[in-house]
Amino acid sequence: MIGQESIDRFVALLGPKGVTTDADDLTPWLSDWRGRYHGAAAAMLSPASTQQVAATVKLAAELGVPLVPQGGNTSMVGGATPPADGSALILSLRRMNEIRSLSPEDNLAVCEAGVILSVLHDAAEAAGRRFPLSLGAKGSATIGGLVSTNAGGTQVLRHGTMRALVEGVEAVLPDGSIFDGLDALKKDNRGYDIKQLLIGAEGTLGVVTAAALRLVPAIAARAVGWVGVDSPAQALRLLRHAEETLGDSVEGFEVIADETLGFVLGHIPGTRSPIETRTPWHVLIEVDQADLAEPGPVERLEGALADALERGIAIDAAIAANEAQAEAFWRIRESLSESERAQGPALQYDISVPVAKMPAFMVEAAAAAEARFPGTTASSFGHLGDGNVHFHVRAPRGTSDGPGWITAQGQAINAFVHDAVVAVGGSISAEHGIGQMKRAELGRLASPARIAALRAIKSAFDPQGLFNPGKLIPLPGEG
Amino acid sequence: MIGQESIDRFVALLGPKGVTTDADDLTPWLSDWRGRYHGAAAAMLSPASTQQVAATVKLAAELGVPLVPQGGNTSMVGGATPPADGSALILSLRRMNEIRSLSPEDNLAVCEAGVILSVLHDAAEAAGRRFPLSLGAKGSATIGGLVSTNAGGTQVLRHGTMRALVEGVEAVLPDGSIFDGLDALKKDNRGYDIKQLLIGAEGTLGVVTAAALRLVPAIAARAVGWVGVDSPAQALRLLRHAEETLGDSVEGFEVIADETLGFVLGHIPGTRSPIETRTPWHVLIEVDQADLAEPGPVERLEGALADALERGIAIDAAIAANEAQAEAFWRIRESLSESERAQGPALQYDISVPVAKMPAFMVEAAAAAEARFPGTTASSFGHLGDGNVHFHVRAPRGTSDGPGWITAQGQAINAFVHDAVVAVGGSISAEHGIGQMKRAELGRLASPARIAALRAIKSAFDPQGLFNPGKLIPLPGEG
Repeated sequence: MIGQESIDRFVALLGPKGVTTDADDLTPWLSDWRGRYHGAAAAMLSPASTQQVAATVKLAAELGVPLVPQGGNTSMVGGATPPADGSALILSLRRMNEIRSLSPEDNLAVCEAGVILSVLHDAAEAAGRRFPLSLGAKGSATIGGLVSTNAGGTQVLRHGTMRALVEGVEAVLPDGSIFDGLDALKKDNRGYDIKQLLIGAEGTLGVVTAAALRLVPAIAARAVGWVGVDSPAQALRLLRHAEETLGDSVEGFEVIADETLGFVLGHIPGTRSPIETRTPWHVLIEVDQADLAEPGPVERLEGALADALERGIAIDAAIAANEAQAEAFWRIRESLSESERAQGPALQYDISVPVAKMPAFMVEAAAAAEARFPGTTASSFGHLGDGNVHFHVRAPRGTSDGPGWITAQGQAINAFVHDAVVAVGGSISAEHGIGQMKRAELGRLASPARIAALRAIKSAFDPQGLFNPGKLIPLPGEG
Repeated sequence: MIGQESIDRFVALLGPKGVTTDADDLTPWLSDWRGRYHGAAAAMLSPASTQQVAATVKLAAELGVPLVPQGGNTSMVGGATPPADGSALILSLRRMNEIRSLSPEDNLAVCEAGVILSVLHDAAEAAGRRFPLSLGAKGSATIGGLVSTNAGGTQVLRHGTMRALVEGVEAVLPDGSIFDGLDALKKDNRGYDIKQLLIGAEGTLGVVTAAALRLVPAIAARAVGWVGVDSPAQALRLLRHAEETLGDSVEGFEVIADETLGFVLGHIPGTRSPIETRTPWHVLIEVDQADLAEPGPVERLEGALADALERGIAIDAAIAANEAQAEAFWRIRESLSESERAQGPALQYDISVPVAKMPAFMVEAAAAAEARFPGTTASSFGHLGDGNVHFHVRAPRGTSDGPGWITAQGQAINAFVHDAVVAVGGSISAEHGIGQMKRAELGRLASPARIAALRAIKSAFDPQGLFNPGKLIPLPGEG
């Protein structure tokens, strides 16, 4: 544990509001929100400005104290949980929660790291704009964390992940220097793109203190459709058809197996299938428009789907007749995780493969997993257009001891699924990052060139190894 | 100079076709195409496969021989010219010129580094698609060079620079290992984005051997308009209006001063102003559509411009009545550099500033330069929506000794313009990179944090300093 003398130096620097040592106040920040990782820390440091962050980092470097940057603490991979031995302090960015500027003319918002995603959503909406990235944790997740994990979410098909939305970054590097890259330049070729390096670095190369973010026009009108198809391969043909005929306006394209839909209909009261025909697979599609020009999105989606039915790349289709129906369609999609969980214990994977290989992967990897682990059932659903599906392997029917099953089988199933992903050139982490959860698997599966590059960059930026120790970079022996 | 013994080892590795030592054959590759930088090299190595590149790099590392990666040798900043002392060999990627795959369904082309840009354009067109990045040197520039310099061009407003179009990269790193990142994953959070680091690295961190590139739908219909406006500020309001009403379909938005237009009309036979009214500034706008849906681009642009005239954010406007007229409008834009050059010697700058600051910069920086260097005239034109304009400072009227004027005044004017760019948070290199030409200015003007980060990354990847020595990274004493 870090001594009181060191803590006192931080108090002298940041004032009492900037240093939390009370055990009750600290507790929520010492474990991840799913309760899988538990850490210890003598204090949480909460600087209120970029200058205070820089001074904090300099003092930590002088004292040799590791820092664990933290925003809303919503990591899915233990990425913001301090080490269990209490050797590090938490560096919270939550006090830096100002939207420094928001310009609808420039479609740009400059947010401090501690701004909560839903706060930015509201501010953009009030200005007639939209920040087009959203995810379940939007009420807690902060901009700094979203940048540092290159967060994705449900609207990536059209607008991309954070990487595509971050136009500038301000950060404090491990030596305490301030990297001031907030000016949003569309073209800038002054050497290596430090901004891109900090995006997705999980706080291991320094800490993001602010970001300039791109806004997009508000949605003026939308159409939501439900389409029955015979296979993921047909769903991909439908996606290509939709992209060709509807262009960039396709904002959502989700694929769901009929069995998975059945879980929702059986588990969530008031839900019903949007189409009458029973088809093996389903697609939820949303088309958005920023203006009220004619033809509107409903008319355009109708045209595209009529054409798809005629060409035999869809079996049945329905378009939501009004906003209430559109929400009912989406409610099915949003209830998938909950109704899947109700089926019993499961292992869930955040993976991606090249889009072209996704249809075969969804069918073949599920069958292979079920064959290899008798009694299990595997399924996948999600963002086909991103090559990113949620892949689930459920425990054999009647398994009552979920944690026991995971302890017994988890590692073997993890390795099996990850091997299948790597075999088709995919990624073992599509959205959630590496953190501590996937560190060893990254070490096992990444190419030596990639591991060497990760380690070289880490040492170059953080030779003392003080930033978010134990995260992202495979430990010696792990790769 | 590198000894014959070393050359023989490369011949043994690559065969006689893979090693060029004939002085006449070497000459074109020893100077940059504008004849500003002159280098020397005992040989040019031309491996024919990624494995041969890896073996070449390993041998060079063993021998301690620096390598200068080269594609079409079209650098604007001396980025591909070997050192004058003959201490390095040229590593040419031109023999690796295969398009490994091109899938219209997946909107993806995998090209080896030596594929020439116009060859890719033709291949994409033959498949009913388009690779939406183009520039003057498209008949020589190669994919490897375009990736390594994060090239831009005339269509960046809608589709972005290479950074936005590269979905995967294969490269040989300085230790000879192959970084295989060709799988095009839309979502991938396995740590630092090595791909983004290699894009724009100017061959200083290794050499790109292939890239997976995004294709977009072919253009089915376009509308080209010419608009008279009173100022760059009004031009920006017009751009925002066009984006709001025409969305992503605005593919070109170029701003031109009336004086600059006058140079074209006076110098290029057969050109005439598309509008009757004499206005201080002009805008060329292109709207594209991938389908033939109604309303078409002409009708939509007419609507947007009529609205702009009514709201007072344009003075006069014309829309090309046919394709010949559309080409005549664009011919004016494409003749700007030539007709500017005909006015006499000039210093030309490749700079960018935040879009919102561009209108003021165009007016104020030009006036400031003219005031500081009496007799000179300054002007700017180009891609307003990218924040990237061509900024020119012309020698006083009647200057006959252009090179003499540049020798006497160049450094002072360079410093003045770059200082003005940095003062508004801009970049001294929007498109062309740093190479050797801007290395010292980068060292003078970049923040210590940025310089330290560049140097740390370079040492981490290339501790021996064998990749493209003397490029991009400021030398000791330069920053």
